[in-house]
Amino acid sequence: MKITDLIADKKSGKAHTEEEINFIINGMLDGRIADYQVSAWLMSVCFQGMTFDESARLTQVMAKSGDILDLSTLGNCIVDKHSTGGVGDKTTLILVPLLAAAGIPIAKFSGAGLGFTGGTIDKLKAIPGFKTSLRMEEFIGQVKEIGAAIACQSENFTPADKKLYELRDVTATVNSIPLIASSVMSKKIAAGANIIVLDVKCGSGAFMQTLKEAKELAETMVEIGKRSDKILSAIISSMDQPLGNAIGNGIEVFESIQTLKNEGPKDLKELCLYLGASGLVKANKIKNIDEGKKRLNKFLENGRAYEKFLEIVKYQGGNTEFVENPARLCETEFAFPLEAEDSGYVERLDAFTAAKASKLLGTGRDKKDDLINYNAGIFLNKKIGDKVYKGDLLAKIYANSVEEGRKSREMLAGAFCLSKEPVNLPELIIDIID
Amino acid sequence: MKITDLIADKKSGKAHTEEEINFIINGMLDGRIADYQVSAWLMSVCFQGMTFDESARLTQVMAKSGDILDLSTLGNCIVDKHSTGGVGDKTTLILVPLLAAAGIPIAKFSGAGLGFTGGTIDKLKAIPGFKTSLRMEEFIGQVKEIGAAIACQSENFTPADKKLYELRDVTATVNSIPLIASSVMSKKIAAGANIIVLDVKCGSGAFMQTLKEAKELAETMVEIGKRSDKILSAIISSMDQPLGNAIGNGIEVFESIQTLKNEGPKDLKELCLYLGASGLVKANKIKNIDEGKKRLNKFLENGRAYEKFLEIVKYQGGNTEFVENPARLCETEFAFPLEAEDSGYVERLDAFTAAKASKLLGTGRDKKDDLINYNAGIFLNKKIGDKVYKGDLLAKIYANSVEEGRKSREMLAGAFCLSKEPVNLPELIIDIID
Repeated sequence: MKITDLIADKKSGKAHTEEEINFIINGMLDGRIADYQVSAWLMSVCFQGMTFDESARLTQVMAKSGDILDLSTLGNCIVDKHSTGGVGDKTTLILVPLLAAAGIPIAKFSGAGLGFTGGTIDKLKAIPGFKTSLRMEEFIGQVKEIGAAIACQSENFTPADKKLYELRDVTATVNSIPLIASSVMSKKIAAGANIIVLDVKCGSGAFMQTLKEAKELAETMVEIGKRSDKILSAIISSMDQPLGNAIGNGIEVFESIQTLKNEGPKDLKELCLYLGASGLVKANKIKNIDEGKKRLNKFLENGRAYEKFLEIVKYQGGNTEFVENPARLCETEFAFPLEAEDSGYVERLDAFTAAKASKLLGTGRDKKDDLINYNAGIFLNKKIGDKVYKGDLLAKIYANSVEEGRKSREMLAGAFCLSKEPVNLPELIIDIID
Repeated sequence: MKITDLIADKKSGKAHTEEEINFIINGMLDGRIADYQVSAWLMSVCFQGMTFDESARLTQVMAKSGDILDLSTLGNCIVDKHSTGGVGDKTTLILVPLLAAAGIPIAKFSGAGLGFTGGTIDKLKAIPGFKTSLRMEEFIGQVKEIGAAIACQSENFTPADKKLYELRDVTATVNSIPLIASSVMSKKIAAGANIIVLDVKCGSGAFMQTLKEAKELAETMVEIGKRSDKILSAIISSMDQPLGNAIGNGIEVFESIQTLKNEGPKDLKELCLYLGASGLVKANKIKNIDEGKKRLNKFLENGRAYEKFLEIVKYQGGNTEFVENPARLCETEFAFPLEAEDSGYVERLDAFTAAKASKLLGTGRDKKDDLINYNAGIFLNKKIGDKVYKGDLLAKIYANSVEEGRKSREMLAGAFCLSKEPVNLPELIIDIID
């Protein structure tokens, strides 16, 4: 087998066999295949795509390149959840205690994110003392003990995906549906759950900007998962405006706690209940989504979900005072109000612009080693459809410096667009593929 | 400027500016841009192509990356010639002395070839003593003195093209018309002539197998040349069967000498006269191709072209005894006749298969440092259209070992295809683009 032949095959649109995919990925890992050959192959994949079978083979070889979690001691009904990433997306922080409260064990592996805000792991680090690096036996032991754990991936987790992603990042080959789907699914498969709920974001603040792309990505991930005997459900949800009202790290934990106390924003609660209910349906715990939503809602109403969150934080060494007084998670020296210059209805609240405004406050990182601000962030007081009077507070910016705060406010102002006419509320849950 | 943005631009089909092309090529040379980024860019060029303007910019930056020959002291009417490469193509060996005999100075830079047979430089090395490495002042001095010189390119000749080609070779990105055209033209522009005759081969033994591709390549090279103020003519010629009767190295020099003595095969003579006449037309020395062919034919008839070849060989240190007795150039220990097993007319004589049969004799190389056999080769006694009786000699194989000779004969047999019906002679000159 010669790598140049395989690149030429992909360039001309042929599908690779299992042996060929193994040859490429293992060759990349052991250095027999040079990076410049892998990147040429990646670019040809961007143009020619991959069949579901090929994508599934790529996923499996990447999953097997490192540690695979063995969750068999936790039972045969382990749910995992993945979001393709959006602005203000803190659903994991809510879903993990919520499902655990409902009796579904959750062993959640998360990554630290590159982007406008941190990933789930970064958000949890806003809670002083919270330990995100757990040894495998600690991690599984905790799930056995209290039903849930959230930790960062081990060093040797899907190294092939890590290497491939690093190369994609510097060769403009990130944007390819089979490559995105294989990357996500390799991590889900290595993470060991048998039921996977996927939240595929679609809109200006998401990687997939059109419904067509989002559906294609959802379908590809579901097809890959099926080929590894996983039970899956992919929800396509809107990401034209930020999810909930909070954007940042600590401020998103704050909003998650509010939501767990049943005091959160409607859209965020709705999506969490929907994703959680999909997991319950797939786990055969209930008959349909509506029934699942009702059951899960009870755990928000009776405080059990909030208590589970508190329990997780305590177990992982976090200072629970910050959970009990969550406003402390987003205390900054400066706060800047953004006020409406006119009256009307919020017609657009562009998620991408809001994310960039948050990034100006230091909430995200470009490189793995960049430091991030845990306390800074944005709180949106108005969202699409809301009536606004001139002078109303549209949002509040929490900043660590005057300059950052002002710049962020200026940018955030551009995210809002008012209309004189009433505006219909956008649909949050767009489609479900399973 | 960021390379990932430029790769993404090309991936999405955008054309690069001059600054962007400079950034990519110079960044590749000075190491600021990694090979894996260049190869991803190359693959996106394979899919998205380049405009004539972009190709011309790429050509110019590659031409300027190394030495540029200054031929201004030789006058303002310097002709260069390039062939895209075919089986049995020895036109350079004939054209250089022929045009020089006609009073057109020729300073010919050639490369050593990778492929089924060597390049022009390798063929000349079949003449014992022939010196192909000349210092720049020797090279130009010789052209001033005797009107012609043939030498291999200097070390520092189009290094950007060299580097880019090495990368293309190992990433399946050779096959792209703008990249092929830019590579060829960068060398032509650096070689300093102002009139360029291009012989674009088309058919089974050529890189361009369809007329559509050959025309596209010819047009791209002509458009690139025009953007560097060159005067060009591109001839598309058939490469479905080998050109002339000889395939190899020394044996091709033998046939070139025969042709210079006006004793060569009809097709080879025709193509040389046509290419040469195109050069004369472009140099404004004559009115049309037919007149040019007549004028050049005189130099074959009166021996002046042959004498010029002898003069070049002598000047460059070659042993002229081998020119005077050219059969010595292809003396091998073993010779194997290939005889017709049936009667009929030669319907096909596949150039690609014939080339592979030659390669089995050691006439070509895969890697730069491979040794080649100068004396081995194939002589075709029958070509397309010829009447053949059972037992007739179709070809003779000159080999340095019995095993190589037998294998080569076996393969060559597969190149011939006989028909019971008379066969029309294929057209040699297919099109001309200028």
